Amino acid sequence: MSTVAIVYFSGYGHTVRVAQAVADGVRSAGATVELIVIDQEGQIKDADWTTLENAGGIIFGSPTYMGNAPWQFKRFADASSKPWYARKWQDKLAGGFTNSASMNGDKGSTLQSMVTLASQHGMLWVSLGVLPSNSKAAERNDPNFLGGSVGVLAQSPSDSSPEEGPLPGDLDTARGYGSRFAGLLARFK
Amino acid sequence: MSTVAIVYFSGYGHTVRVAQAVADGVRSAGATVELIVIDQEGQIKDADWTTLENAGGIIFGSPTYMGNAPWQFKRFADASSKPWYARKWQDKLAGGFTNSASMNGDKGSTLQSMVTLASQHGMLWVSLGVLPSNSKAAERNDPNFLGGSVGVLAQSPSDSSPEEGPLPGDLDTARGYGSRFAGLLARFK
Amino acid sequence: MSTVAIVYFSGYGHTVRVAQAVADGVRSAGATVELIVIDQEGQIKDADWTTLENAGGIIFGSPTYMGNAPWQFKRFADASSKPWYARKWQDKLAGGFTNSASMNGDKGSTLQSMVTLASQHGMLWVSLGVLPSNSKAAERNDPNFLGGSVGVLAQSPSDSSPEEGPLPGDLDTARGYGSRFAGLLARFK
Amino acid sequence: MSTVAIVYFSGYGHTVRVAQAVADGVRSAGATVELIVIDQEGQIKDADWTTLENAGGIIFGSPTYMGNAPWQFKRFADASSKPWYARKWQDKLAGGFTNSASMNGDKGSTLQSMVTLASQHGMLWVSLGVLPSNSKAAERNDPNFLGGSVGVLAQSPSDSSPEEGPLPGDLDTARGYGSRFAGLLARFK
Repeated sequence: MSTVAIVYFSGYGHTVRVAQAVADGVRSAGATVELIVIDQEGQIKDADWTTLENAGGIIFGSPTYMGNAPWQFKRFADASSKPWYARKWQDKLAGGFTNSASMNGDKGSTLQSMVTLASQHGMLWVSLGVLPSNSKAAERNDPNFLGGSVGVLAQSPSDSSPEEGPLPGDLDTARGYGSRFAGLLARFK
Repeated sequence: MSTVAIVYFSGYGHTVRVAQAVADGVRSAGATVELIVIDQEGQIKDADWTTLENAGGIIFGSPTYMGNAPWQFKRFADASSKPWYARKWQDKLAGGFTNSASMNGDKGSTLQSMVTLASQHGMLWVSLGVLPSNSKAAERNDPNFLGGSVGVLAQSPSDSSPEEGPLPGDLDTARGYGSRFAGLLARFK
Repeated sequence: MSTVAIVYFSGYGHTVRVAQAVADGVRSAGATVELIVIDQEGQIKDADWTTLENAGGIIFGSPTYMGNAPWQFKRFADASSKPWYARKWQDKLAGGFTNSASMNGDKGSTLQSMVTLASQHGMLWVSLGVLPSNSKAAERNDPNFLGGSVGVLAQSPSDSSPEEGPLPGDLDTARGYGSRFAGLLARFK
Repeated sequence: MSTVAIVYFSGYGHTVRVAQAVADGVRSAGATVELIVIDQEGQIKDADWTTLENAGGIIFGSPTYMGNAPWQFKRFADASSKPWYARKWQDKLAGGFTNSASMNGDKGSTLQSMVTLASQHGMLWVSLGVLPSNSKAAERNDPNFLGGSVGVLAQSPSDSSPEEGPLPGDLDTARGYGSRFAGLLARFK
């Protein structure tokens, strides 16, 4: 039960980089990670549902478009009504990350929706767990410069390529969250 | 500019009844109403985008599935990034309704998402405007028995047909909201 | 570390009954419980801060007034900036309950605020974990009749005495949550 | 009815500067403004309640502490249950601003709470109405650099004096919002 599943949608290649950073963090803490991609039609493979059911924890990821997770992510969430009804994810750890072009851009609304989804499934939500970097001397690539609390916030300017995209400090924050999540999962028997 | 557009998704026929009740209310207040259906693939017709652009106010409607509006509604919301970028809906009135099987069922999260969507578009959100019915003598079909504030809450038990579905008091609440919305739109020059 | 602290504010005596039901549930699962009362000025005793620091999990409780937890609860939350900065509650389990006069009454907003507070502290949020009772045959005193997911929702009609107040099914739901919370805490090493 | 009331709490002198910028914007659009200060005990003067009742629109303002508006603001909100019950603020325009030390810091949660409060009162919420500045060339003092949508977001680093505090671009955004709010109020007959 020490496997962490990361199920995410990425529209243009930025969010996948956040997913990979979270995955790196999970691995660095000694846990196994399964990356599940929601495709451009909002689908995952049949086998992925089994992977999710077998995981000890599930981390949700998506960009924020028009103030919430894109429809492809929501299609996945809607399809999770089957494991929801059968309580397949009950008592698993849950977490989340999101990326958008601006500093805020209602990323907090996306994370709230993920908390609600996780709560419907009867899961336990793992917060970010890092103080914000918010003094006058704060620099863009400090850990949690964006000042999140519920999960990982990442920013990719609207005209940035995926290579430029999620800024290095946000990717570090994502790595730290993956590591934290795996560490908490290891304590949960 | 006294036209109210109601754009909604209905999965099984319950939410359409709430949409019709809101539409009745709009008409009863002397305004024109355009009902726009989001189809099972999350699409509206090309002409519908023009209707939305020309409307004085837009009311969003959907069921609540897994704690938020279904993916089909979100696909519509994502597609609205075009009028968003061009500020086509700026300063229009906005409103919303949602239906789900239980008393709460995170309907409030769906309405919050609609407020966020409307805010991204630069709109003005019209609240429900009715005190809850919450004394010991309260009856299920009192106006606003469900105790909403941000928009219309409707409930259809999970095994109810659309005919049984949204309970009569909730439909009355929806009618009242349509009328209120049209009345406020008439005051907005 | 198997102690659960329940820190709550009750305005007129209804919410205290929900707190006691949650406490009963915690005890029934074999854990120790500490009930901490936020007084009418929004204060707790100095020793209570130590109790909170030593607890394995903290459950927050309050009525919902004007769409969120009352000022007395928020005064407690604001005062928690000290343990927040020192990360004294980091990695503890967190949970919440709220009571108001109507079915909804924006109780969901109160629970969201509690999730945000817990997240700022770096805690793990324990969801309700019970399917809603939402068929045509549903009865008012079924478990989770109110259809919550993030935490415990309770309803006390506006003119009810505390004895009549939180309806029996809601108190059962609260007991179940206390038991669930303690069970999860026991698994968390 | 062209008076805009701004009712705010400021803990250390930063939020008052945002309030003044919003007020400047209101005045620049030709409307009258009334600034109402919530004191350190969460109180406003008796006459202020009359001012609020007579205003055409009310803009709420506060810092974000521990993920939401401070207790003093909530005490004011709780005290507004009197005009709430008498529907004294029904159909007025509403708006909001908040300030905190980090980029996000759950400022969005504070604005959501203000939307809920306004909705309980039956008001119409005025969104920010400005696209975010989010390209690679974006600069800290661009309008809406923080990427808000529901209302005004301002940031004051944790160790900044009120003079350094809310950054100039955020104050410009606040001025723009005041002007927008007054312009919309003038159109609402």
